[in-house]
Amino acid sequence: MIGFTLKAEDGAARRGEVATAHGTIQTPAFMPVGTAATVKAMRPEDVAATGADIILGNTYHLMLRPTAERIAALGGLHKFMNWPKAILTDSGGFQVMSLSELRKIDEKGVTFRSHLDGAKMEVSPERSIEIQHLLGSDITMAFDECTPFPATLEVAEKSMELSMRWAARSRDAFKNRDGMGIFGIVQGSVYPELRHRSAKALTEIGFDGYAVGGLAVGEGQDAMFAVLDYTVPALPRDRPRYLMGVGKPSDLVGAVTRGIDMFDCVMPTRSGRTAQAFTHRGTVNLRNARHADDTRPLDEKCGCHACTGYSRAYLHHLSKANEILGSMLLTEHNLRYYADLMRGLRGAIERGGLADFTADFNATQDAGDIPPIE
Amino acid sequence: MIGFTLKAEDGAARRGEVATAHGTIQTPAFMPVGTAATVKAMRPEDVAATGADIILGNTYHLMLRPTAERIAALGGLHKFMNWPKAILTDSGGFQVMSLSELRKIDEKGVTFRSHLDGAKMEVSPERSIEIQHLLGSDITMAFDECTPFPATLEVAEKSMELSMRWAARSRDAFKNRDGMGIFGIVQGSVYPELRHRSAKALTEIGFDGYAVGGLAVGEGQDAMFAVLDYTVPALPRDRPRYLMGVGKPSDLVGAVTRGIDMFDCVMPTRSGRTAQAFTHRGTVNLRNARHADDTRPLDEKCGCHACTGYSRAYLHHLSKANEILGSMLLTEHNLRYYADLMRGLRGAIERGGLADFTADFNATQDAGDIPPIE
Repeated sequence: MIGFTLKAEDGAARRGEVATAHGTIQTPAFMPVGTAATVKAMRPEDVAATGADIILGNTYHLMLRPTAERIAALGGLHKFMNWPKAILTDSGGFQVMSLSELRKIDEKGVTFRSHLDGAKMEVSPERSIEIQHLLGSDITMAFDECTPFPATLEVAEKSMELSMRWAARSRDAFKNRDGMGIFGIVQGSVYPELRHRSAKALTEIGFDGYAVGGLAVGEGQDAMFAVLDYTVPALPRDRPRYLMGVGKPSDLVGAVTRGIDMFDCVMPTRSGRTAQAFTHRGTVNLRNARHADDTRPLDEKCGCHACTGYSRAYLHHLSKANEILGSMLLTEHNLRYYADLMRGLRGAIERGGLADFTADFNATQDAGDIPPIE
Repeated sequence: MIGFTLKAEDGAARRGEVATAHGTIQTPAFMPVGTAATVKAMRPEDVAATGADIILGNTYHLMLRPTAERIAALGGLHKFMNWPKAILTDSGGFQVMSLSELRKIDEKGVTFRSHLDGAKMEVSPERSIEIQHLLGSDITMAFDECTPFPATLEVAEKSMELSMRWAARSRDAFKNRDGMGIFGIVQGSVYPELRHRSAKALTEIGFDGYAVGGLAVGEGQDAMFAVLDYTVPALPRDRPRYLMGVGKPSDLVGAVTRGIDMFDCVMPTRSGRTAQAFTHRGTVNLRNARHADDTRPLDEKCGCHACTGYSRAYLHHLSKANEILGSMLLTEHNLRYYADLMRGLRGAIERGGLADFTADFNATQDAGDIPPIE
């Protein structure tokens, strides 16, 4: 069981706290992705310093290397990667579909070959939950099937129904412990009736939190928001809600407005390694030659190492020279930007000012980056 | 002019201080290499925290990208890379020879094509010194020819004589400023007479410090030490001595014993990016499967992030997964190991205990890494 306290609401948006065995998560919260037991290019203490209360670990990657059993023998994922705060693990379902080879799905689970060495492996709901136990996850995710997009109503329905049967098996396999919980995942593609049936099925099983899955797969922001508009109201009010794999800053603002509490996405970290920065003036590509002689900071409203210690010209140089420090500084900056955005959203909800916050956010993002120095 | 104070001696070994415009360098000192305006995989404040008083910048790389003129316009190399302590720049000579294409050497200097874009460029002694001025280097190196190894006496003599004429032109081109100095470079391959003539020529020109060049090019440690045995005594006692491009830990101990004060080498940083660690028990390859389940720290005598926060098993995992954090942690560890070694050498010289220090160092290095856990 994990605790959830709703501290304030502003429209559908919520300000809350999720209590886990490894500390309290202030929501709305963004979870940096720590795929292979590391948030890429970051020391864990620096991830925490950006303002993250929780990170996400990927079951698929960790079960292949170094394996869940090895991590358990080494004291669990928190100790292994030196991250004392909360960890949510995904179920492995999504990445089995997107990364493995020769996968075969049946009622029991998924058989596949590792993308690392071709070894044949199986994951079932029971095995996924066992792995997440071995890792020592604070928040375990139910094992589900990743519905392709687009999918016909018939395909989406069959897939959702399988995921609901797997959700029940996941819940059964989960061993309750204080401060550790399991979330169910609503599926149903872009079909309101399926989303409602899925939400109802999960609520009847009973989970510590509810995720919205199967989005951020190419449907676009409008379609995603439309799904949230009819799905979120079907979720229990007293439990945290997690939108999986989302997203860019405007996705987060729109989803928080629609009642989502938690997010994860590789965007800030992956973009940090490709010289793409999120700022208070929108997205900035530091590879662009316009920055080569620019003495100004990347984002004057940001307090991270990249923005307080260096010029745009230097960050441009690092990106052109493919220097690791460029990935380090821009990853930190992006995580700080995301954490600051969530902090801003939390404050706005607390004071009932989310509409103003969103208007300001949209205005500065629309204004675009600072003009080049003449 | 830069200051040099000799604080203690133990045999030929010296404990000193070099005073520059960007702080005092405690010698014997190791200088981490910051090739492209970054010590790879390290934030500059973390480089300083390992114990480094000075880093080295590479003229060849910086003149190509982002160019010396651009760095000057941006306020100089210290500001550009956010490194407030001292910087030594090499002359570009060595890397023009080893990295550029279609190079042509004549009395005037070197014509070559950039390895980045094929652009035709020239470096002369005068241009090299100008570039180092533009960068804002605390210690400028005279421009010299890199003598190939092995070289016949005749080839080595012609090369050394050219380098001495270039040294005089470098000295003439250098503008004296407080806290900034220029070092000459002794050449002459493995020929005592040439090394002596070179040292004499440089001393007559008069430099702020004297480097021994043309070593660590495949001659082996014994041959290198032999060169130092007859070259170092020919250098002025009241000026710092710098052994260029050296080396592994035992090279440093042996060279300090022979009267060298300063070193630079890519070994700790490059090794950190290939999972090779220097420890109080010798060199450890973290890619080796023996570390996969090892809960112990890499080096229990080390206080760096890698050794205090993580197990060998985790560092092994990072190296197998090619994670940037592996490069970050092991680079920091190696720089800390080198800085600690220099600190140890300084303390030993101060108390007249260098022989004991060296014996202890050799014994622990020879003992090898800790045995695997049964």
